[in-house]
Amino acid sequence: MKIIVDVHGGDHPEEVVKGAITALNQEKDITLILAGKEEEINRMLTGLSYDASRLEILPATEEISCSDEPTVAIRTKKESSLVLAYNRLKDDEEVVGLISAGSTGAVLAGGFMRIGRLKGVSRPALGPVLPTLTGGKVLLMDSGANVDCKPVNLCHFAVMASAYMQAVEGVKNPRVALLCNGTEDEKGNAQVKATFPLLKQMPSVNFVGNMEARELLSGDYDVVVADGFAGNVALKSVEGGVKTVTSTLKAGIKSSFMAKIGALFMKGVLKNMKQRLDVNGQGGAVLLGLKKTVVKVHGSCKASAVVGAVSQVKKMAEFDIATAITNGLAEMPALDFAE
Amino acid sequence: MKIIVDVHGGDHPEEVVKGAITALNQEKDITLILAGKEEEINRMLTGLSYDASRLEILPATEEISCSDEPTVAIRTKKESSLVLAYNRLKDDEEVVGLISAGSTGAVLAGGFMRIGRLKGVSRPALGPVLPTLTGGKVLLMDSGANVDCKPVNLCHFAVMASAYMQAVEGVKNPRVALLCNGTEDEKGNAQVKATFPLLKQMPSVNFVGNMEARELLSGDYDVVVADGFAGNVALKSVEGGVKTVTSTLKAGIKSSFMAKIGALFMKGVLKNMKQRLDVNGQGGAVLLGLKKTVVKVHGSCKASAVVGAVSQVKKMAEFDIATAITNGLAEMPALDFAE
Repeated sequence: MKIIVDVHGGDHPEEVVKGAITALNQEKDITLILAGKEEEINRMLTGLSYDASRLEILPATEEISCSDEPTVAIRTKKESSLVLAYNRLKDDEEVVGLISAGSTGAVLAGGFMRIGRLKGVSRPALGPVLPTLTGGKVLLMDSGANVDCKPVNLCHFAVMASAYMQAVEGVKNPRVALLCNGTEDEKGNAQVKATFPLLKQMPSVNFVGNMEARELLSGDYDVVVADGFAGNVALKSVEGGVKTVTSTLKAGIKSSFMAKIGALFMKGVLKNMKQRLDVNGQGGAVLLGLKKTVVKVHGSCKASAVVGAVSQVKKMAEFDIATAITNGLAEMPALDFAE
Repeated sequence: MKIIVDVHGGDHPEEVVKGAITALNQEKDITLILAGKEEEINRMLTGLSYDASRLEILPATEEISCSDEPTVAIRTKKESSLVLAYNRLKDDEEVVGLISAGSTGAVLAGGFMRIGRLKGVSRPALGPVLPTLTGGKVLLMDSGANVDCKPVNLCHFAVMASAYMQAVEGVKNPRVALLCNGTEDEKGNAQVKATFPLLKQMPSVNFVGNMEARELLSGDYDVVVADGFAGNVALKSVEGGVKTVTSTLKAGIKSSFMAKIGALFMKGVLKNMKQRLDVNGQGGAVLLGLKKTVVKVHGSCKASAVVGAVSQVKKMAEFDIATAITNGLAEMPALDFAE
């Protein structure tokens, strides 16, 4: 099994390479392909020990940055690490997935333009895997790839995200909730109200009802389905809420001698909290619905996120998530998808 | 100036009464009307000292609970404290506003059904006033009263919320942002994309562009405009994020002896943080766009929130927010509000 890693596009290519090598040393049955500037990669590999027979470099001369217009960049930067990586992902049957820390827009555009959709999928979607209060994970799908959605899209997100939670997290019969402004069945905007009865009728989805955004990380749900706009708002608001508390706490500690001493005593707890809430360490956001899997790690990610992402791609391939998704969609009853 | 307070419907009527009396003692030029069960109110007033000539009881025999269907309750529970309070608000020119800790649905329904809309307002809206990282406030409008919106509604929210920030927070030329999935002008779902150019053209709105949900509490904006669905998701996600950190922190402190000692040293900082992030202490969510002002305090609010709410209502009346809103709307250019 081969996995391709786009070295460029993020803030710390050396962390991407370091993470890839750590993953290569942990997973003995994979081959990694590093797409990027050969000289730079070789320099970054210096001093690292690994099984060279399972590492390949796919040389590129360009990179796509966050300031590039995504679709234009995919079309014109033909020698960029991301485009070459996508071409290889498409053409090489042995390559099962791609990992990139590059511009989300470019990663999405590349996926849509170079890799086809799976049969039956109306819209591929992107979702982050978030840590929950009970120590588990929750997949929020979509979180920004599709800002305008129809009910049928949300139903497909439910099938795809359920397959992911089974494949990677080993969750049997994942609990799927619909992001809403209340928990009652009759709550929601027009889109949610139209989607609710459809999800109820889907045999391949364990739909547990509407949920309020404050319960996103409660651990009561394995999958939360939303259109990309509302999902993005939820994701970033949670981030904002977390940041507000941690910033206020940090500023408080800085401003008081007593609190500084207190923080020393609490060091273990604070570190533990940081780790538990660190999305970075847990892999990346998954792009589902394409013929091959793509994981987008954070632009400023550390090596550990890349290690997590390799594990995500590997588990999805071993589970054969593509077949799980197409089977799940094929089982869908003839629903009335009119709006 | 008279302000009416609905005593029932929330979890702690005695806190509502206590807060009302504290406000009455602070604000020497107002009269408060407590709507509720007379015997209960008299019992709650026992032992409190106040100027009885500025306190009136509006006797009610029923209350509306959260399990009541809002519009049905407003229509049928004619002797409830909320309905009687709304009737008085409507009929008595001297009464400038209403405060309730009751069911949000019933408070909204009562407002829409008993109090008319201001001239030119397409949709009244509800917004919480949130604390920001820089020590200021931000008004998120709408946060749930209108889950399906048109661009014209969002433009009206901008005018109304700007008037509030001027009236109550004394912010000159409030910075208005549109809740979006990115900061770039061209970002957004269809609704945001249609609203953006309209807000740009409004002379009475200091529109500063799109914002990401993670910046909601940053202090960079005074008003954040959203449809009630996205606004609700943002509000509750922030709450969820804050809760996640504080719960994780609390559990960590509980589980370690060292951390418990640390928490003692950090007592001041932790208390200060709790106060700063406490929406409860800062008043309530404002319902704007009706002929009179309504403030909805949290169902489980403490007395301090009611004190804040009285101050909100008083300031809005002194500023004559109704005229500010109608003038702001009258200044709107003939925009193309087609979708």
